[in-house]
Amino acid sequence: MTDLYAVGVDLGGTTVRVALVDRAGRICQDAIHDTCVERGPEPVIDDMARWVGEVIAAAGVPHERVIGLGIGSPGPLSPSRGFVHRPANLPQWSNVPLARDMHRRTGLRTVMDNDANLAAYGEYWAGAGKGVDNMVMLTLGTGIGAGVVVGGELLHGHFENAGELGHWIVVPNGRRCSCGQRGCLETYASAGSVAKRVAESIREGEPSILSGLVEKGTPFGALEVERAVRDGDALASRIWDEACYYLAVACVNIQHAYNPARIVMAGGMSKAGDLLTLLVQKHFELLVWKLYDDCPEIRIAILGNDAGVIGAAGWAWKARQEGRWAADGEGLSASSNDELGQ
Amino acid sequence: MTDLYAVGVDLGGTTVRVALVDRAGRICQDAIHDTCVERGPEPVIDDMARWVGEVIAAAGVPHERVIGLGIGSPGPLSPSRGFVHRPANLPQWSNVPLARDMHRRTGLRTVMDNDANLAAYGEYWAGAGKGVDNMVMLTLGTGIGAGVVVGGELLHGHFENAGELGHWIVVPNGRRCSCGQRGCLETYASAGSVAKRVAESIREGEPSILSGLVEKGTPFGALEVERAVRDGDALASRIWDEACYYLAVACVNIQHAYNPARIVMAGGMSKAGDLLTLLVQKHFELLVWKLYDDCPEIRIAILGNDAGVIGAAGWAWKARQEGRWAADGEGLSASSNDELGQ
Repeated sequence: MTDLYAVGVDLGGTTVRVALVDRAGRICQDAIHDTCVERGPEPVIDDMARWVGEVIAAAGVPHERVIGLGIGSPGPLSPSRGFVHRPANLPQWSNVPLARDMHRRTGLRTVMDNDANLAAYGEYWAGAGKGVDNMVMLTLGTGIGAGVVVGGELLHGHFENAGELGHWIVVPNGRRCSCGQRGCLETYASAGSVAKRVAESIREGEPSILSGLVEKGTPFGALEVERAVRDGDALASRIWDEACYYLAVACVNIQHAYNPARIVMAGGMSKAGDLLTLLVQKHFELLVWKLYDDCPEIRIAILGNDAGVIGAAGWAWKARQEGRWAADGEGLSASSNDELGQ
Repeated sequence: MTDLYAVGVDLGGTTVRVALVDRAGRICQDAIHDTCVERGPEPVIDDMARWVGEVIAAAGVPHERVIGLGIGSPGPLSPSRGFVHRPANLPQWSNVPLARDMHRRTGLRTVMDNDANLAAYGEYWAGAGKGVDNMVMLTLGTGIGAGVVVGGELLHGHFENAGELGHWIVVPNGRRCSCGQRGCLETYASAGSVAKRVAESIREGEPSILSGLVEKGTPFGALEVERAVRDGDALASRIWDEACYYLAVACVNIQHAYNPARIVMAGGMSKAGDLLTLLVQKHFELLVWKLYDDCPEIRIAILGNDAGVIGAAGWAWKARQEGRWAADGEGLSASSNDELGQ
């Protein structure tokens, strides 16, 4: 009866995930909805607030047992001020005071951060990073997102945009990236870029068991490339190996940047499991220095698509512990919840 | 009469600098001595303790007005446990409990960290990083040392070896580094490597106004290369520009790693001033992303060789503020000093 819960929301361009999460990082109730992002921010925020209420109600938990709300959103955004700037996959969103708006609609004290950070925090709190104090997560999806946990805290930096490791330059003057740079990690080692590079090479005439898909114009992703690697396809194997090589370069640079105990790989490409980690580990051992034995473990994430909502809720738990919320207006019922806590 | 001071020690392979520093980061008294490192650790530690006492005495400051001692040492080392491992330029030093030994000999509560970290902290506290909360410093000397300040704290990481940015791989499969990696930043952009690369190219037959020095076997450094650049030498200009290009790549990667407000350049090459920063800035602006306006300022360090002792003393001030020392044994006079503080 005295159990307490936090709500995590993972706002994406396609779907919104909402979950009620207990103190141990377990999801007690959850839901997934289409964002319908073309409506612009106001109706989406109205719906999200309603979905938060619905998840709490469905779990049969009294509102006063919910200690707060954490929201993961595409960046750029300001966690400290609770604003979402102009995310590429949330068109029409421009400097939206999301934390304040959700706080007003739900009555819950609210904290927010970017989705890659909160997915990393989720794995740190309740997943593949459990038990370590310093961890970096790379999410290998369409692009590469990252989150950096230092001594149990998310690293933000002065402009609140630290840990954009998908845009580390790993090949000076290399492939062009949509961000305007050249040679970004994500142009070589994201799930999206691996599939794209295989398709490019097929169009340039390289033989591959995937060439039929390219001829028919059937889109494919990292999963098909992974299968082709397992089937011994030479082109797919070369591109996959190159991706693992550049991920290993990034792991060496992560080691020297943050010196974490663990690096966790998540996102589409991480579903390959050992085919990813063993290759990254092999390249890493060939690349890394011999001066000092401070190598991080390299592991696959374990929370899958739940990492975002779990991390968002976990970040609300942490905000409560430290009394720092992005929105916790006075006079609202939420502000008295804390008295119920331990 | 009620002024308080901290002592900073900067232990190097060649010299030991000792300074009495006030609360504002000003040096009130200092001294420099030869390390005579070939003697092994014990006599050096005995001497350092004596030099600390001498600097306090020379300033006419009563011992109880000294709040503690900060020591910068070559790494690898453990700041939290106060041990120096096996630094390349302190032969015979192997797991020396330096903080404890200095604490016992001086009676001062003691804190320590690696020299590059404390030089960065010095600039952050009282130099080119003053007024910002997040700063990264690159020290361009024989190699490249770095220190990372996040929210006023030095970043250490799980193995206490974070911020080894001289060993970031900037050219995959590039030049061999003494650390065992290839393509490290310091093999392209340290003062030492710039001079070495110019000499290599001259030996391979490239014309340069520095070729006389190479023929005569006269060693030269970044200063001579800088002069040759100013005199319009094509080879020196190309190598210098390449160094600035790779420093700019590192600055982009620092931006995405830590998102600092400022990047400070120190060490031998930084004496070139604008010839360094304007070129790094030019390359940086061509390389960096256009997604979000979170570019750090790039500046030259201002404390010169004093950064290390000032930072060491500053780190002792911070240790006092937060009550965390590497060595503060009970029953020693040092432990009662704090009562005098504010």
